[in-house]
Amino acid sequence: MSGTTESAPEGNTEYGRKPFKRSKSHFADRITADGRDGWPVEPGRYRLVVSRACPWASRALASRRLLGLEDAISLAVVDPLQDDRSWRFTLDPDDRDPVLGIRFLHEAYDKRETGYPGGVSVPAIVDIPSGELVTNDFQQITLDFATEWSALHREGAPDLYPEALREEMAEVIEGVFRDVNNGVYRAGFATTQYDYELAYEDVFRRLDALSARLADRRYLVGDHLTEADIRLFTTLVRFDAVYHGHFKCNRNKITEDPVLWAYARDLYQTPGVGDTVDFDHIKRHYYEVHTGINPTQIVPAGPDLSGWLEPHGRERLGGSPFGDGTPPPPPPADEVIPGGPQA
Amino acid sequence: MSGTTESAPEGNTEYGRKPFKRSKSHFADRITADGRDGWPVEPGRYRLVVSRACPWASRALASRRLLGLEDAISLAVVDPLQDDRSWRFTLDPDDRDPVLGIRFLHEAYDKRETGYPGGVSVPAIVDIPSGELVTNDFQQITLDFATEWSALHREGAPDLYPEALREEMAEVIEGVFRDVNNGVYRAGFATTQYDYELAYEDVFRRLDALSARLADRRYLVGDHLTEADIRLFTTLVRFDAVYHGHFKCNRNKITEDPVLWAYARDLYQTPGVGDTVDFDHIKRHYYEVHTGINPTQIVPAGPDLSGWLEPHGRERLGGSPFGDGTPPPPPPADEVIPGGPQA
Repeated sequence: MSGTTESAPEGNTEYGRKPFKRSKSHFADRITADGRDGWPVEPGRYRLVVSRACPWASRALASRRLLGLEDAISLAVVDPLQDDRSWRFTLDPDDRDPVLGIRFLHEAYDKRETGYPGGVSVPAIVDIPSGELVTNDFQQITLDFATEWSALHREGAPDLYPEALREEMAEVIEGVFRDVNNGVYRAGFATTQYDYELAYEDVFRRLDALSARLADRRYLVGDHLTEADIRLFTTLVRFDAVYHGHFKCNRNKITEDPVLWAYARDLYQTPGVGDTVDFDHIKRHYYEVHTGINPTQIVPAGPDLSGWLEPHGRERLGGSPFGDGTPPPPPPADEVIPGGPQA
Repeated sequence: MSGTTESAPEGNTEYGRKPFKRSKSHFADRITADGRDGWPVEPGRYRLVVSRACPWASRALASRRLLGLEDAISLAVVDPLQDDRSWRFTLDPDDRDPVLGIRFLHEAYDKRETGYPGGVSVPAIVDIPSGELVTNDFQQITLDFATEWSALHREGAPDLYPEALREEMAEVIEGVFRDVNNGVYRAGFATTQYDYELAYEDVFRRLDALSARLADRRYLVGDHLTEADIRLFTTLVRFDAVYHGHFKCNRNKITEDPVLWAYARDLYQTPGVGDTVDFDHIKRHYYEVHTGINPTQIVPAGPDLSGWLEPHGRERLGGSPFGDGTPPPPPPADEVIPGGPQA
């Protein structure tokens, strides 16, 4: 989908390449404290554009909430359904983003690079004064939120990318990316039985290893919530609702793995994480946009999601979500998701 | 699929009518003890043609096994994958049924009615001497096995259609047919969100009612296995493997309903029932044939089926599968299914 310059799969055009390959982000400028790429950290200057359907963009949603960057970085949420012009601001009055004044995210891409031929992806950060896209580098954006933007973090913000843990985090994150975050896409967009089965094996081998790792520790790395957990969570929360059926990752549901299910519920119930999840956007996006694998565009009525707020019991493992910090306050009123844990 | 003269859905041509309607069987002659339709019960005279993928045909498979009619009625198993000539004998040497000598089931239909324009469905019973189709009436075939064929039942055969219970059975069977057996097809072949959701509601409302009914009784009607159980079983055994994902009946899996899951396992482990189930045929048929809902034709590797032989604990509810009768002996060697409970 999004999270790449790859618009093909979720742009609903040709994705028949085999096997599925995710392109690298094209615009990799960084917004930094020292402004060395020409984009200094500044409150109110940038707009984060996301789809709540997209797991890659949802990392940025959770990170921004946990760090308290809502006032510093404003938020634009696109319609979960792209058309052939890709992501659209059709949820806004007059189908136009009220801050950027544009109707399609591609307008910010075009402003940055005239005639840019690549895909339009989220998350995207746009420079409000110029209207230009700054970055769509989904792998870097949240790391920079955690580090470069620290002067603007809320009081009590957690350290989502602790220096002492980065080596261990990198290893965990790499396996989660390859086999889980991207593995489900490789399974779902496979065009041969062989490629599908390779991806399926990777997905469940890695999930089994993560389940074993998380059996006696509350978080993936260290004793507190980090970027590594956010990255695993954004796939887990979509798994039963979409990847299990739509992408055929159906050895079992996450609800059938007691460890991963409790871990996912724990994160869902953590302020700043679950309150960014919009199951309606998630389900409609995948099932309505990918006509190549769901030509009827019918959106399943299941699964039953009522269990997400059940007690998870993971406190007994020790650790705590925010370390020396505190939970974020509830989301701004205009960011509350109907049916979400804070609704 | 099969079980109707409706070849459209499983024949992979137009099934875009809304809502999905299952046609009545066209050839409704009955094979009876008194031969009043011209087809008397006779050992060795008729050939039962089935797809092991098909839930309607699978009723006849289980019924024939339970009643010990294997010697009286021989069996032809078609390839789970139809082509545009419908069901084929491509599992047999030279792609030809060794007894009927035909390559396609439609040849027996054509012999019965020249230029028959309808769909070709299983179960079908063919008169071996003439090569003519006798009946494809999936609703009647098993009832006649249980009653008209009684002179040829094995010793110790159960009474699958007890006279004293027929009124209650009819009511149960009618609801199971409408909401479960056929309900999953209405969901899966719906072409509008509205039709899909109506069907989905019907499926789970009925499954919930059946789960409540079966919580304190081992079988649906009376104290022993009957035709009613066979008819529910053939859908339940396909549910998680196919209907949950492919037909979007995904509120929950059968494995997530403790009562229905134990009930389904109990039947699967009953000789004559589970030994007719071929998960490989089931999965390949649905996922490869219905290109209208699964255009990639990729067959999911899941779900994990290892639980089907786990203890079910339903003996404590009283009742017994065979009443005063006995279990059937193992299936004939050439009918043993790889990976099945008897394999």
